[in-house]
Amino acid sequence: MTAFISLTTDFGTSDFGVGEMLGVIYAIAGDDIRVADLTHDVPPQNVLDAAVILGRHTPYFPEGSIHIVVVDPGVGTHRRPIAARLGKQFFVGPDNGVFTLMLRNAQRDGEPVQVVHTNRPRYWLENISAIFHGRDIFAAVGAHLAAGVPLEELGEIINDPVLLDLAEPRPIEGGWEGVITRVDHFGNLESNIDASLIKDMGPVDVIVGGAAIHGLVDTFGAARAGDLVAMIDSSGVIAVSVVNGSAAGFLHVAQGDPFRVLKAQP
Amino acid sequence: MTAFISLTTDFGTSDFGVGEMLGVIYAIAGDDIRVADLTHDVPPQNVLDAAVILGRHTPYFPEGSIHIVVVDPGVGTHRRPIAARLGKQFFVGPDNGVFTLMLRNAQRDGEPVQVVHTNRPRYWLENISAIFHGRDIFAAVGAHLAAGVPLEELGEIINDPVLLDLAEPRPIEGGWEGVITRVDHFGNLESNIDASLIKDMGPVDVIVGGAAIHGLVDTFGAARAGDLVAMIDSSGVIAVSVVNGSAAGFLHVAQGDPFRVLKAQP
Amino acid sequence: MTAFISLTTDFGTSDFGVGEMLGVIYAIAGDDIRVADLTHDVPPQNVLDAAVILGRHTPYFPEGSIHIVVVDPGVGTHRRPIAARLGKQFFVGPDNGVFTLMLRNAQRDGEPVQVVHTNRPRYWLENISAIFHGRDIFAAVGAHLAAGVPLEELGEIINDPVLLDLAEPRPIEGGWEGVITRVDHFGNLESNIDASLIKDMGPVDVIVGGAAIHGLVDTFGAARAGDLVAMIDSSGVIAVSVVNGSAAGFLHVAQGDPFRVLKAQP
Repeated sequence: MTAFISLTTDFGTSDFGVGEMLGVIYAIAGDDIRVADLTHDVPPQNVLDAAVILGRHTPYFPEGSIHIVVVDPGVGTHRRPIAARLGKQFFVGPDNGVFTLMLRNAQRDGEPVQVVHTNRPRYWLENISAIFHGRDIFAAVGAHLAAGVPLEELGEIINDPVLLDLAEPRPIEGGWEGVITRVDHFGNLESNIDASLIKDMGPVDVIVGGAAIHGLVDTFGAARAGDLVAMIDSSGVIAVSVVNGSAAGFLHVAQGDPFRVLKAQP
Repeated sequence: MTAFISLTTDFGTSDFGVGEMLGVIYAIAGDDIRVADLTHDVPPQNVLDAAVILGRHTPYFPEGSIHIVVVDPGVGTHRRPIAARLGKQFFVGPDNGVFTLMLRNAQRDGEPVQVVHTNRPRYWLENISAIFHGRDIFAAVGAHLAAGVPLEELGEIINDPVLLDLAEPRPIEGGWEGVITRVDHFGNLESNIDASLIKDMGPVDVIVGGAAIHGLVDTFGAARAGDLVAMIDSSGVIAVSVVNGSAAGFLHVAQGDPFRVLKAQP
Repeated sequence: MTAFISLTTDFGTSDFGVGEMLGVIYAIAGDDIRVADLTHDVPPQNVLDAAVILGRHTPYFPEGSIHIVVVDPGVGTHRRPIAARLGKQFFVGPDNGVFTLMLRNAQRDGEPVQVVHTNRPRYWLENISAIFHGRDIFAAVGAHLAAGVPLEELGEIINDPVLLDLAEPRPIEGGWEGVITRVDHFGNLESNIDASLIKDMGPVDVIVGGAAIHGLVDTFGAARAGDLVAMIDSSGVIAVSVVNGSAAGFLHVAQGDPFRVLKAQP
């Protein structure tokens, strides 16, 4: 059966990493696979960004897809390589919390959560570089999964994967307080406040970086270049943008900063 | 039968759009497809650029290929989503003129031209974001086409697709006047003057941005860094470049500016 | 049988070249292929960089893979288009030395070395642009190889392919002198001094650009931002980096500059 493999890294596409991983994957898994690049432009070593990116993309992929992530500041240290079945899909990468969202979602939905420490060198490449486990361990392990090796065969089951301490939005007087979960490439600010939380609140103000934005627009078509706007973004959370500009730059805010949505003042 | 799908967007590759579209395509169309990225670096919202890019690439693709384009400044407004058979290939995207060249070419060659308003939600994703029809409508519709759904099943046939008002070169005294159709990433200037128009004119001067370039070079091998040269580019039109530099920057010109080719002064 | 094709170019991904090549490959080779992008960001016309990139990637690919390279400053001149079986894989591109490393490795290992001048237009596209043989010759020839045309059918066997004069490291008093073979996108310096050469030397100093770096670190985890460090990189050669910075910028060095590894001073 065909396997779908996605790649998410912080390598960029100008050097070696991506092509070498593709070679390893094709050499091990053969031809009955499809490989999709999610992005290779995760900000260097930003595990939280990679976690958010995975949380957005993977729901759109077919059941059984294998997502390999290489955002790995701890490469060459004692951090473990892991693989996991989380819900209906598979994940391979460093044990640094990058799969936190997928694990939480699977737990919440009563779906399978199975994590293994991929510590069996027979599923790695023969020579292991201390600085590139993406190629020598993760690509190899992901390709063996794609080729039909069962997850539990790849290593010992563990129950203590590293988890990120992801902030949850909390109710405050008049609305919700969350954080900026990610600043995208264009400087748009994504929050962790899902539109479902505020759907009965009526008109709202969005407060971020000292600015108060009155109301949500439906789409960029309604605004002019330079306007600071809030909207429900394509993943269903409240987001803030400067039309044709950078909200992060304009407001001097960053990942983790507070982001509030309040009932509009009359 | 295997279907070939190409993607052309203005998303860049640092964020979400491309990977989410790939997930949707694989989830709907299954494994018997091949996906090719034409480019994700169309200048933001530049529909004309996307139209020119499609006009160049698609003739090289196999019959039956499906080209999905998401350069969509009108997303979330009343602009229609469309799919079309234009000549021997298929196209899916916003009804904003981005397929104008393909439609004109098909009409000129007496080939099929069939456009449908893809207004049947059963071929969309279940939830539609107001700002990302690329994922929720275009990728889904393209994948259903790839999976064998007939074009006419995707929506109502329409006869009034939006068309760009593309300039045609016109004969002037001593030669032809056209426009710069596109400035590429390196600052090279492409015109709409096909080499076939001037093949019997003998030596020519190219006039653009106040400069007169005497004669065409065959290839960059003949020129030195910094030289301003004119040549027949790889799509068969007259183009102007600065060797290892930017002609657009050097001449202070942009898309749409006049571009003339005249019989050389003796 | 499925064929794997890789692409390495200096086109970038913002314009036409890559998508047109993909169209040609799919149109000729049909669906039983997989295409992998190694990189499209080789520094413009840097044949040596492309040669080093190929030397690193290709060992990871399956036997029989076809690697198409388009870093081609001599396009449109008398330089020959070639295809080759070098070891267990195939290569298609300009005869400018870009395959030197693969050819030397195959000779060293007693494996097949067969090079043909791909001079038979029936395996090219019908119209040949003077400036884009990547599409009109190399993609077409590579696709015919993938579709099963034997190498020797593509043109005349030649015995004088162009070879780069690649520096070999040489023993000097107290160690080895080599060169910087490549500066990567982040400014890291790769040398041609393989770790195996120094494995019995004990502690070492690395001398490059006037700096002396004491000892090798195992991985970036051991260093702080801004540190100048030397290590065995993921291809097994000695490399120099500035953590989260550019060693090339910091040391004012470039490809080809001397790079020495010496027994550490007591």
